[in-house]
Amino acid sequence: MTTVAVGQLEPRFGDVVHNVERTADVIARAADRGADIVVLPELVSTGYMLQSRDEAFALAEVAGHGPATSRWLELARELDVVIVAGFAEQDGASLYNAAFLAQPDGTHAVYRKVHLWDEEALYFEPGDLGFPVVHTRHGRIGMLICYDGWFPESYRTLAGKGADLVCVPTNWVPIPGQRDGEAAMATVLTMAAAHTNGIVVAAADRVGTERGQEFIGQSLIASHTGWPVAGPADAAAEALLVADVDLAEARRSRAWGKFNNPLRDRRPSAYELT
Amino acid sequence: MTTVAVGQLEPRFGDVVHNVERTADVIARAADRGADIVVLPELVSTGYMLQSRDEAFALAEVAGHGPATSRWLELARELDVVIVAGFAEQDGASLYNAAFLAQPDGTHAVYRKVHLWDEEALYFEPGDLGFPVVHTRHGRIGMLICYDGWFPESYRTLAGKGADLVCVPTNWVPIPGQRDGEAAMATVLTMAAAHTNGIVVAAADRVGTERGQEFIGQSLIASHTGWPVAGPADAAAEALLVADVDLAEARRSRAWGKFNNPLRDRRPSAYELT
Repeated sequence: MTTVAVGQLEPRFGDVVHNVERTADVIARAADRGADIVVLPELVSTGYMLQSRDEAFALAEVAGHGPATSRWLELARELDVVIVAGFAEQDGASLYNAAFLAQPDGTHAVYRKVHLWDEEALYFEPGDLGFPVVHTRHGRIGMLICYDGWFPESYRTLAGKGADLVCVPTNWVPIPGQRDGEAAMATVLTMAAAHTNGIVVAAADRVGTERGQEFIGQSLIASHTGWPVAGPADAAAEALLVADVDLAEARRSRAWGKFNNPLRDRRPSAYELT
Repeated sequence: MTTVAVGQLEPRFGDVVHNVERTADVIARAADRGADIVVLPELVSTGYMLQSRDEAFALAEVAGHGPATSRWLELARELDVVIVAGFAEQDGASLYNAAFLAQPDGTHAVYRKVHLWDEEALYFEPGDLGFPVVHTRHGRIGMLICYDGWFPESYRTLAGKGADLVCVPTNWVPIPGQRDGEAAMATVLTMAAAHTNGIVVAAADRVGTERGQEFIGQSLIASHTGWPVAGPADAAAEALLVADVDLAEARRSRAWGKFNNPLRDRRPSAYELT
């Protein structure tokens, strides 16, 4: 079994020092509870509501060399955990809405958000690294960020490349039409992706209101069957979710009876998707 | 506005005469309530639990020439409705799990299930007509059948080809892991497909237990926002759902703010989906 933790936090906009210490705290608490893998929200080190390119450049860092990503590398090593967390990445004159994966052996990987949401298009470049699958001793991990989850193609690509677990740093916003007591659409999409691909999905959302934008919390860990094994968490309060997931069973149980397997039953020649 | 009806029925296995009369009854009731389009379950004329090729051949019919499809053509003309319903199609020495779309002008279209479930593989051929989009005076209609809905590629293909409404004759079965009070996974997948593509989805399921196989009902009509506008219906009883949907608004409101559109934001060059 693999113990996965999701930290639902409320970053303070622009205060990287504060935010990184908050992530260090929740990573330590997750490690105390036996976590092998800790997932934290999108842009957790900076906050989300950037308003200009200047502001974005001022808060971004080079992967592995800035205050957030270098601290996550230290913590991964010290606490023997894999950490996946969102940060603003600078690469020369380009910025990316990115996820950083720090391993205990000191190596790291970066995923750059492929599908940009709203005014992110004004300061971030669309991700140009595709959808990497990172090998860890716990299994194969893919990463997606927020709006990527609106594209089943993202999850399908990762599952097809062998991902057992997809970690999703996110900053979900309210979606019109939700009725009282109804699951958030983000919950629906996360469950659908886990179920239709037979993969575990760990989605770490933020809470709070920032520069007028509300975020909806409700982080969750969905098992490879699609059903949540932790969360959805509270819509407004910070939270730490911890769940044991069986990544071997995820891979094994994609045999749906004698004839079916959700990944092998695809019929690409019938899809008109260009 | 377009009025869409979904008839949730319990077919009697192998009794085509009885089943066709039951569909005629529900189609007439839907027309009385103003339906423009009526959707009925998968294999509604025959029942689902076929056990041999002989049995399947005995119950199948040539599209537009057998007792079910010719009756649906008559009813479409008489009642001025579009009818979408599941039947077992014979085409020479081949059988298909198919959906028949009858228009008031006497024309028809056929969709053949692309993704076969379980022992369907023993008597049906995989669909070889791709995913047709049928033009009607109400808008563009696509069809999918049951397990097709486990492949987001199916909905995406139809949406990309311009479908405003996807009609889903289905025979959903229970999925392990569902907790009391939780939405069925079929509901989750239907909502996710409607939301991520900005399309209306009308799914007509059956109820009852046939040759030991339970079916779960819970038919629904999801608006282009993803939220249900009718259903989920009862898990065990027959039902008729009727809802007004705005197919023009579905098309218009795929503009998600100034930057986003769920169909145009796809990045096929990043997807490794072969």
